[in-house]
Amino acid sequence: MNPTTSRAPLNRPEPELLGQTVVVIGGSAGIGLETARRAREEGADVILTGRNPERLQRAALDVDPLSTAAFDANDSAALKGFFDGLAGPIDHVLITAGGPHYGPMLEMDSDQVRVAITDHAVLALEVARHIVGKIRPGGTLLLIGGTGGRRVRRELGIMPVATAVLPTFTSALALELAPIRVNLIAAGFVDSPLSASLLGDALDARRDELRATLPIGRVVRPADVAALAVHIMSNTALTGATYDIDGGQQFTSS
Amino acid sequence: MNPTTSRAPLNRPEPELLGQTVVVIGGSAGIGLETARRAREEGADVILTGRNPERLQRAALDVDPLSTAAFDANDSAALKGFFDGLAGPIDHVLITAGGPHYGPMLEMDSDQVRVAITDHAVLALEVARHIVGKIRPGGTLLLIGGTGGRRVRRELGIMPVATAVLPTFTSALALELAPIRVNLIAAGFVDSPLSASLLGDALDARRDELRATLPIGRVVRPADVAALAVHIMSNTALTGATYDIDGGQQFTSS
Amino acid sequence: MNPTTSRAPLNRPEPELLGQTVVVIGGSAGIGLETARRAREEGADVILTGRNPERLQRAALDVDPLSTAAFDANDSAALKGFFDGLAGPIDHVLITAGGPHYGPMLEMDSDQVRVAITDHAVLALEVARHIVGKIRPGGTLLLIGGTGGRRVRRELGIMPVATAVLPTFTSALALELAPIRVNLIAAGFVDSPLSASLLGDALDARRDELRATLPIGRVVRPADVAALAVHIMSNTALTGATYDIDGGQQFTSS
Amino acid sequence: MNPTTSRAPLNRPEPELLGQTVVVIGGSAGIGLETARRAREEGADVILTGRNPERLQRAALDVDPLSTAAFDANDSAALKGFFDGLAGPIDHVLITAGGPHYGPMLEMDSDQVRVAITDHAVLALEVARHIVGKIRPGGTLLLIGGTGGRRVRRELGIMPVATAVLPTFTSALALELAPIRVNLIAAGFVDSPLSASLLGDALDARRDELRATLPIGRVVRPADVAALAVHIMSNTALTGATYDIDGGQQFTSS
Repeated sequence: MNPTTSRAPLNRPEPELLGQTVVVIGGSAGIGLETARRAREEGADVILTGRNPERLQRAALDVDPLSTAAFDANDSAALKGFFDGLAGPIDHVLITAGGPHYGPMLEMDSDQVRVAITDHAVLALEVARHIVGKIRPGGTLLLIGGTGGRRVRRELGIMPVATAVLPTFTSALALELAPIRVNLIAAGFVDSPLSASLLGDALDARRDELRATLPIGRVVRPADVAALAVHIMSNTALTGATYDIDGGQQFTSS
Repeated sequence: MNPTTSRAPLNRPEPELLGQTVVVIGGSAGIGLETARRAREEGADVILTGRNPERLQRAALDVDPLSTAAFDANDSAALKGFFDGLAGPIDHVLITAGGPHYGPMLEMDSDQVRVAITDHAVLALEVARHIVGKIRPGGTLLLIGGTGGRRVRRELGIMPVATAVLPTFTSALALELAPIRVNLIAAGFVDSPLSASLLGDALDARRDELRATLPIGRVVRPADVAALAVHIMSNTALTGATYDIDGGQQFTSS
Repeated sequence: MNPTTSRAPLNRPEPELLGQTVVVIGGSAGIGLETARRAREEGADVILTGRNPERLQRAALDVDPLSTAAFDANDSAALKGFFDGLAGPIDHVLITAGGPHYGPMLEMDSDQVRVAITDHAVLALEVARHIVGKIRPGGTLLLIGGTGGRRVRRELGIMPVATAVLPTFTSALALELAPIRVNLIAAGFVDSPLSASLLGDALDARRDELRATLPIGRVVRPADVAALAVHIMSNTALTGATYDIDGGQQFTSS
Repeated sequence: MNPTTSRAPLNRPEPELLGQTVVVIGGSAGIGLETARRAREEGADVILTGRNPERLQRAALDVDPLSTAAFDANDSAALKGFFDGLAGPIDHVLITAGGPHYGPMLEMDSDQVRVAITDHAVLALEVARHIVGKIRPGGTLLLIGGTGGRRVRRELGIMPVATAVLPTFTSALALELAPIRVNLIAAGFVDSPLSASLLGDALDARRDELRATLPIGRVVRPADVAALAVHIMSNTALTGATYDIDGGQQFTSS
């Protein structure tokens, strides 16, 4: 064994997304905004969408996007209008819109059940139909789901059912959209503005609990998820699969 | 080791479903009708429903049900009317209605996607809401799904996505409906009138292929599934789980 | 709807295992003994094995077996001797021998790790090699595993790893042994003499906890598992699959 | 929407592994060598091990490692000697050693079965015991498995059983080794020297088949896997999980 003198690194590869364009549906905060920032650092242009024009404007100051568009992703006409209006080809689309649904199934009506189980899939399919012909080879449609519903528990209600849909949906859509790649990120608790607004005063206690119980000893941040998202965009061998990022949370009781 | 002279059997236990009442939604043919027959043989009364009055009448001649009711299970008002009109408590409900949906997701509109992914769950939830207070302790709500969509394949389209919902849905509903038990049978190809009508002239070739490739060397029949269904009804330790019956088909390329 | 007058049951089918022979490896108590009793009630002859001759003798008084054999199933020569000495063909073999292994993997040596992960599979394969040519068509090799290790948790150590092996092993062996069927029962806590000896004074508290938390509201007993075992033996469409029996325990925190 | 003029990228982040040290067990070719190269490009020092001294020497010319060590990773004493001799702390260990085992289980003796099912886990545990106290916070132990055995098929023999062990093993070990992270890469066919030597003259036909059937339309290369490996090393929120990289192969019949 040789003595351990550090060596000069080899030449670093080009930025991962040089010359590419990334669309973030739900890009004004949290995971979406951090992914936009990371994509910009790796040489991409970004296009941000979000519901709230003010928040979107603040995000734009941060990441200098090619363009922004304020609309509700669940408004099918607005979504179509956005994609129809794109000036050029794109490479990747990240959808962060839509949170988990909780609550007992017996207390929901049939329409609520349908929406809770399928809303991510339905939105992803709408986007998928719009991007055929617009995404360049090697690009990916990237969805966000969670690891928190992998295990059925009484207090989660319908949530694990909705969770069960996404990995299989992702694989099936990857076969239909090929060679466009389709992948899913399954996150645990992420310390985002959304989490802060949902938890309110309970946020600090939740953070403390996770620091104490997670194998990684810290809370997962939006920038962690963003780094994974950009890797999935850049690694053109990945499709049809689910990538967990939860610091081991699914194996703890948190 | 003693010489092998066969012994007199111990006393046989009582019939498995003695004094119980089984409702079969979709009981005029195939798995539903065979389950009704088997339940009758095990001492149960049965109540049959089906869409087609003539077929239901013929089934009634076969199994001597307590009553029959002809209606479409997807008609919510009719379904409610049926359960409201039940004269006494029941013990088990088997839902056989509803087949798998195939086809590319990209070619379906959002409503079709929602229905294909959730129709079994939505119907099961409707039934679940009606039977609370009517099912005696130890009873079960029993659903039928399949093993054929366990693996995502291009030619199956949306089918594996719908398949992925049911096991988790069954577990989650079991927690909400407890102590009513909820279970799922996952069948492969079953040699039923439904299969015959779907396959037409291709039926014999399909049977031959399965005989040649299935580990059990024969085709699965409705009576096989019925025996499993009656066991799940009678075994009061089973809940929240999925019970495969496909002769090993999911591990072959058939 | 007709008035609800109970009908005379149809003729009951023959006993499920009439004229068949069931071998129970580990049949002197608990799940094994109850399966032997149930198989006898369904018309089968049984052959019991167990490590302890006195317990085996007491079990024999209970179920009147065709024969008994006292040996340690993990003694390969004794196991071979037992199967070589069988006087006639058999139909089903249930293996109950072998409990779960717990403990941190980092504190086990390599041999302990190998045994903990593979001992059920290795014993099943030994039995499998002995029964080829002895089991009649339609027969099954039936294994017992658990649902308690489905979820990885720190306090379970290696146990979930061993749990993960059995369902896939069962499917793979079913393909190799076909047309002999191979199936796995995955049980939760079962209120057996083994549980009593493991838990000691904590048994009553465990029972109380399970009664309070399980969806079925009671503890699973050996006779529940025995009924499932006999059903799997009799239902010749079942192979390569895993059948849960835990009263919903895997979805509770118990 | 603004006109699409490309923006200047934000400042690129530091190299991902700057100042870190990566040990590659099995680093003289294929995935291991490519991971070493990629890690060097991201600022890491690397330490390479391999069985063949000549190949290791050639690899060293390529990536300028801190040191190399030629030994068989399955030789426990040599493995211990290697880790005992490390001059300083390390950050990540990638184990590429060990290929899949095929063949019918019924034709293997018990020792062969044990080895085929557990050899990756046993080697990983040996390494795990050696690196405790040597890996800096945030580091990871990274294993390589496969997606090819996710589905049980007759011609794969024991392979799917061995495949089933690794994801659960990875999660369980991640809990024991925390805060050291443990992750698994599940690869499909990778166009490596190992594949070339296994397939011989059939290599080109296999490549053509994969190009025609994989959703990504090309064969997965060692550099693809290396990029994922380095991402997992750098993303300190990832632990206990399995990351697929197979171009969608698991959903095709290839």
